[in-house]
Amino acid sequence: MRAIVPFAAERPKTRLADVLTASERRSFADAMLSDVLDALRAADFSPHLLATERQDRDVAQTVDDRPLTEAVNDALREHGASDDEPVAVVMADLALATPAALSRLTAGGDVVIAPGRGGGTNALVVRHPEFRVDYHGASYLDHLRAARDVGASVREVDSWRLATDVDEPEDLVEVLLHGEGASRDWLVDAGFELDTSDGRVGLTRSE
Amino acid sequence: MRAIVPFAAERPKTRLADVLTASERRSFADAMLSDVLDALRAADFSPHLLATERQDRDVAQTVDDRPLTEAVNDALREHGASDDEPVAVVMADLALATPAALSRLTAGGDVVIAPGRGGGTNALVVRHPEFRVDYHGASYLDHLRAARDVGASVREVDSWRLATDVDEPEDLVEVLLHGEGASRDWLVDAGFELDTSDGRVGLTRSE
Repeated sequence: MRAIVPFAAERPKTRLADVLTASERRSFADAMLSDVLDALRAADFSPHLLATERQDRDVAQTVDDRPLTEAVNDALREHGASDDEPVAVVMADLALATPAALSRLTAGGDVVIAPGRGGGTNALVVRHPEFRVDYHGASYLDHLRAARDVGASVREVDSWRLATDVDEPEDLVEVLLHGEGASRDWLVDAGFELDTSDGRVGLTRSE
Repeated sequence: MRAIVPFAAERPKTRLADVLTASERRSFADAMLSDVLDALRAADFSPHLLATERQDRDVAQTVDDRPLTEAVNDALREHGASDDEPVAVVMADLALATPAALSRLTAGGDVVIAPGRGGGTNALVVRHPEFRVDYHGASYLDHLRAARDVGASVREVDSWRLATDVDEPEDLVEVLLHGEGASRDWLVDAGFELDTSDGRVGLTRSE
């Protein structure tokens, strides 16, 4: 199954600005993208990068610098999402995604949604040619509505690994605890460690 | 399968103090407990409440006012968790738990862990008589270690519904978005609504 992976190259992960410099954020976002692409390939998806700037990577890619919603909808139109040719849309910051978790997206449903925290949509599979995305605001609710409007069935994938997009410093704790790839290695190399000294799990960084 | 549900009756959910009064927190915690017990029963578990004070509910219960770890370990000893008689331990604040999500705990493994955010352990199944819990700090890591120490195999359940324990105001957003039971009804009756006016999903409360 084709999997579109949107990637905003120019100003990634601004909510991590308290703990990572701009250059570190780009580098860490790149490591997360590598993990997502690797996990997709291992789960037999064909990843297709939808990037705001061309990336120096060995992966099919389309460059589109418009906002996420417009770019993804054009990609869905172009690839013609249908029952015969479903198209997945998987966010590039799912650093905990494993092949097993991603494989759960491929079971039936005109629209398959893996919700993210806060009403987000972290991964989708579209098998209905008229379904369109809307990532602004509570995209989860918008996508339920959009599916209903075109008569598409919806299936939800209850995966914590897919629900965890990495946006904020506390999400780095999850990557250190449960990550298995380049993103976790990146954090460890950058000096991040778990801090369990006060009975809850925090983050420290050595110099 | 027997399912122990620990419940701290006296001072629940202090991290919700910014948005709920003490009496509201007790009432909301009670609604969440109802949802967890209902979902467990619908998934063919036999719930057994492990409460710090006797609860006026039609459910088997043990009163034990010691800290969580000691009380659960005594309950595991008493119920004799084994391959023939596995015992589940399910937190009382999993307001998004569905029968389908809980059923995923019952597949094999000496120790089955549904991790929570921040290194927590939101649900467990124990089939090994020597395994003991430790809920202090990063319990997820402690439980992996405890399983290894007694030679118990570990299986993880990747469920976002089980990973979402309701501790903080932002968790109420998840209950409004994805809850299906008494907890969501409680929040709606208390005047809580989703606020998507600024492009992200927040919470408002009408008077």
